[in-house]
Amino acid sequence: MKRQVEEEINQLKAKILHMGSLAEEMIHFSMKCFIERESNFGEKVFKNEEEVNRFQIEVDELSSRILALYQPEATDLRTIIAAMKINSELERVADQAVNITQTCTLHLFKETPVKTMMEIPRMATIAQEMIKDSLDAFSRSDVELAQAVLKKDEEEDTLKAKVLSEIIGMIRKHPSQTKQLVDLILISRNLEKIGDHATNIAEDVIYMTIGKDIRHPQQQDPPVVSPSL
Amino acid sequence: MKRQVEEEINQLKAKILHMGSLAEEMIHFSMKCFIERESNFGEKVFKNEEEVNRFQIEVDELSSRILALYQPEATDLRTIIAAMKINSELERVADQAVNITQTCTLHLFKETPVKTMMEIPRMATIAQEMIKDSLDAFSRSDVELAQAVLKKDEEEDTLKAKVLSEIIGMIRKHPSQTKQLVDLILISRNLEKIGDHATNIAEDVIYMTIGKDIRHPQQQDPPVVSPSL
Repeated sequence: MKRQVEEEINQLKAKILHMGSLAEEMIHFSMKCFIERESNFGEKVFKNEEEVNRFQIEVDELSSRILALYQPEATDLRTIIAAMKINSELERVADQAVNITQTCTLHLFKETPVKTMMEIPRMATIAQEMIKDSLDAFSRSDVELAQAVLKKDEEEDTLKAKVLSEIIGMIRKHPSQTKQLVDLILISRNLEKIGDHATNIAEDVIYMTIGKDIRHPQQQDPPVVSPSL
Repeated sequence: MKRQVEEEINQLKAKILHMGSLAEEMIHFSMKCFIERESNFGEKVFKNEEEVNRFQIEVDELSSRILALYQPEATDLRTIIAAMKINSELERVADQAVNITQTCTLHLFKETPVKTMMEIPRMATIAQEMIKDSLDAFSRSDVELAQAVLKKDEEEDTLKAKVLSEIIGMIRKHPSQTKQLVDLILISRNLEKIGDHATNIAEDVIYMTIGKDIRHPQQQDPPVVSPSL
């Protein structure tokens, strides 16, 4: 019984990691689509999305199955709860990449290209790194790496604010380009959201590993989920 | 044992509903703040946010406790899984209301007011109704009402597209007002996101009630979670 539950939890983790690598690819391809104005990359995004959606259902199904069959406790229970939450986050990361791609193929490609991409490719690199690191942290139960992800999100938020203020300045100067510049704002928001999802994953990893819920820290003293659960 | 688990599940549901009513209030107050340019309403939003965050941790804690102590099965297990998911959605609804309020108090109030709010108050009304209906559906295990929420999201998406296109037209005519008009775009996106969270809640209610996962329907034939789980 013990070996069986371990095996199924390992399967669950493997599914999450596979799903994560598909989502990372989607961020990468959506940016290629944006930078190179090439809708072929968009097709890769949509292809991966189908797979991510399939994984999402499989992960929830497998989690429910493990809960129902083995009644896991302590670390095993926390791992399954974390897996279910990370599952939702990854599906939403995929949605953000789809949104970026749609903004490109349905709107941006029809307009005159604007001369600058500002820090958007940099934001995408950070977002992709954050997803990768948060999943590495999940795979290795690495609290330190998860904490580094939380730190990186501050950098992403600073870039987002910078991009917004630059775009507003550009729109004022070139109002005829409003539409494509607003599209850039929306893309930067999608990337910021990916960073937020990575942050949520990192928090789930910390909860899973040390049994402590670090969300909303000012409200928790002592920690509400004890390590002995 | 059976009575005890029922009682704790009822407590869990009550917490979710209380959290939902706090989140609904937050949408309402953030809109009052936006429409009346009055930051007092913003303070109410921030006050509720603290409570929602506390509830989020309590709901996860209680769910973990029920899973660990009673090893629930079938409908009970699905209810707890749904509660954990709805919990995340509601915390994000609260975040969106906070974002709207911050856009108002930190940015919009410092600029000359734009003459029109377009369909933004209407979008807020629909978003709030969607949250209310999705939680009523949760409370009564009402699949029909949950399905009506999914339908309403289409209306919200149509309004969002309309608002975006109107704002882009206004920016072109009044580029000096770019900053406050971009703020309106961001607020309309926050409201759209609230609609998306309500949609997710409605899908969770359907899963909880009939044991069928209706996400990504094109990929599922037959349903992957059988009612007998």
